[in-house]
Amino acid sequence: MASVKVYGPPLSTAVSRVLACLFEKEVEFQIINVEMAKGQHKTTDYLKIQPFGQVPAFQDGEVTLFESRAICRYVSEKCAKQGNKGLFGLDMITKASIDQWVEAEGQSFNPPSSALVFQLAFAPMMNLKQDPNVIKQSEEKLVKVLDVYERRLGESRFLAGDEFSLADLSHLPNTQYLVDRTDKGGLFTERKNVGRWWDEISSRDSWKKVVDMQTLPPKS
Amino acid sequence: MASVKVYGPPLSTAVSRVLACLFEKEVEFQIINVEMAKGQHKTTDYLKIQPFGQVPAFQDGEVTLFESRAICRYVSEKCAKQGNKGLFGLDMITKASIDQWVEAEGQSFNPPSSALVFQLAFAPMMNLKQDPNVIKQSEEKLVKVLDVYERRLGESRFLAGDEFSLADLSHLPNTQYLVDRTDKGGLFTERKNVGRWWDEISSRDSWKKVVDMQTLPPKS
Repeated sequence: MASVKVYGPPLSTAVSRVLACLFEKEVEFQIINVEMAKGQHKTTDYLKIQPFGQVPAFQDGEVTLFESRAICRYVSEKCAKQGNKGLFGLDMITKASIDQWVEAEGQSFNPPSSALVFQLAFAPMMNLKQDPNVIKQSEEKLVKVLDVYERRLGESRFLAGDEFSLADLSHLPNTQYLVDRTDKGGLFTERKNVGRWWDEISSRDSWKKVVDMQTLPPKS
Repeated sequence: MASVKVYGPPLSTAVSRVLACLFEKEVEFQIINVEMAKGQHKTTDYLKIQPFGQVPAFQDGEVTLFESRAICRYVSEKCAKQGNKGLFGLDMITKASIDQWVEAEGQSFNPPSSALVFQLAFAPMMNLKQDPNVIKQSEEKLVKVLDVYERRLGESRFLAGDEFSLADLSHLPNTQYLVDRTDKGGLFTERKNVGRWWDEISSRDSWKKVVDMQTLPPKS
């Protein structure tokens, strides 16, 4: 795969999901800055590749794509024999097992965790008012999801089986913020199996490279 | 593919997404009733195949899966040469284009539309109180998503291109309820392109068979 383009700031959780996948698959990429504060994600040209005006967008030659999880699947399929070969499984059944946990991340884990990331990490940086009800409800939902993960990770080293995969990778962006930039990290680190899993997946070289690209104000 | 098992009531939007896919791919299936009112989705045996205690779960011989969109991808991959062969594309780029719109459905369309379905269609049937704020906010979000769809469907017959695919199919369950069982159907039917698209996708034989399986109280 020739060098690809990723539109959007590495600070974005969805952008960093794609970057983690590109590092795992050893695909060269170029970041195209999208200055959201200046409304660059709502320009006619940008909307041609990302009709919802969100980040990331992705370009591989003539192919343009949006939606971080779809981009990760495409990169994994196209570069099946490159980099981490097992990232999206080597057979149909393993792939389906990985895919069901990527979907669980997108449908069950992401809604409460991204709400908490926004409320607790981004809102203070942007001087926006926090909503205590959203924080409370999101934490309650996330705890229930993590109860399921705790059981699953008690019987399996990674979410989809014995190998690190897109299923685990997809959880890195939100969890990194929650552990590093909020007071909710204990939801992960204080659980025996989830804590062990988080230590293992967050210490991968691919993910450390992404975190190094995220320029944030100093922790308060 | 031998006969597969689908756990959960066809009334559920996520279950009916899987059923629509099985009809398109001409896969025989058996419905296993999960009486949620009796807590059957929280039994130890059921949690082994659906750890979140939700519907649907899916069984194909030794393979069990959850998450409706992951099940649809698996069925489409495994039965690539059966039934509607283009449902998940015939090449990697078409597949990625379909996948990005399935993700858009899961991430952007489903949250507000499923909230409206619950508030406006299910809550009255279950004698639950409606939340006017949720209804208002969900409608505002859905309108913005449908503005994007209206533009997209002005340049393309279906969401991912010239052929009906999983991308369109994935929208059927929530939209059917909104059009049939709420006063919000006009959000779809009064738009030129979205309305034309809805007429076309909802009149497919596969989907009509699913609707026939949904036993509902008479419309009030």
